[in-house]
Amino acid sequence: MSLSIYDTTVPVFTRMLTNLLVFLDKAEADAAARKYSTDVLVDARLAPDMIPFRGQVMIATDHVKGCVSRLAGQPVPSWPDEEKTFDELRARVQKALDLLATITPEALSGGETRDVTLKMRTGEVTMNGLDYVNQRALPNFYFHITTAYAILRHNGVPLGKSDFIG
Amino acid sequence: MSLSIYDTTVPVFTRMLTNLLVFLDKAEADAAARKYSTDVLVDARLAPDMIPFRGQVMIATDHVKGCVSRLAGQPVPSWPDEEKTFDELRARVQKALDLLATITPEALSGGETRDVTLKMRTGEVTMNGLDYVNQRALPNFYFHITTAYAILRHNGVPLGKSDFIG
Repeated sequence: MSLSIYDTTVPVFTRMLTNLLVFLDKAEADAAARKYSTDVLVDARLAPDMIPFRGQVMIATDHVKGCVSRLAGQPVPSWPDEEKTFDELRARVQKALDLLATITPEALSGGETRDVTLKMRTGEVTMNGLDYVNQRALPNFYFHITTAYAILRHNGVPLGKSDFIG
Repeated sequence: MSLSIYDTTVPVFTRMLTNLLVFLDKAEADAAARKYSTDVLVDARLAPDMIPFRGQVMIATDHVKGCVSRLAGQPVPSWPDEEKTFDELRARVQKALDLLATITPEALSGGETRDVTLKMRTGEVTMNGLDYVNQRALPNFYFHITTAYAILRHNGVPLGKSDFIG
């Protein structure tokens, strides 16, 4: 068996975004049971200078569309960051899942050696597709999914590790 | 270029554990500057039923030794969970880094198709090495590294995303 860059990205993103939808469902059920608004969770943060829950969800999906587009040598689609409710966040996660469903292994073929150029605050950085996945796309993706989970847990939403792992 | 299971694990673990050492250094410096004991951070949690900081660090290293051993078809070494200070946690992270430094691409060759059997609460689960990496080892590893970071940030340690990404 030889591995492809598709194997290490698309099924991983799909699985974890599907788990993220479960976080949203369980948080909504908790809000109903404890009689608070999910708007509180949407804006909840772990520290005043960290990004709120809705930002964690949005940026997780940004890394998904960025990763598969860059590995395929395609322009990264622009999605306006306007989500403010659980239903809107759910729709954004579904949009990323729908995009992933269109990506074939062939579309990412050779993506591991393709030059990926990222615009950073400090200037442009170019690396090959494998380093981009290992050093940028996956760590960032997992960071934001985990932080979304942690914000909900910190606020008492009854999630467990098995929800995270799926 | 063909990818190997080594490419998707060992450099990733090494990079993120090296970043974790930076979290520890910066947290220790913050404790000195704000005059509190790092013992407080060692036991800090994001929720009363989540694992404290020291557990996050220990479990992150457990997933590293578990992953490389299982992919190589070797028994997983047992490390007692006795770390209670920053110096002891640092030593545990270094122990995992030292183990990673001994793992060659050849040792993991074919690991993606090797059957991996995990003992779960609900019984044994067997999956191939690639699914194990994608669905268990990497998500768990990133979960614990991110949660360690989040506990420190929640307690005001001045870390930033660039410390996480490295």
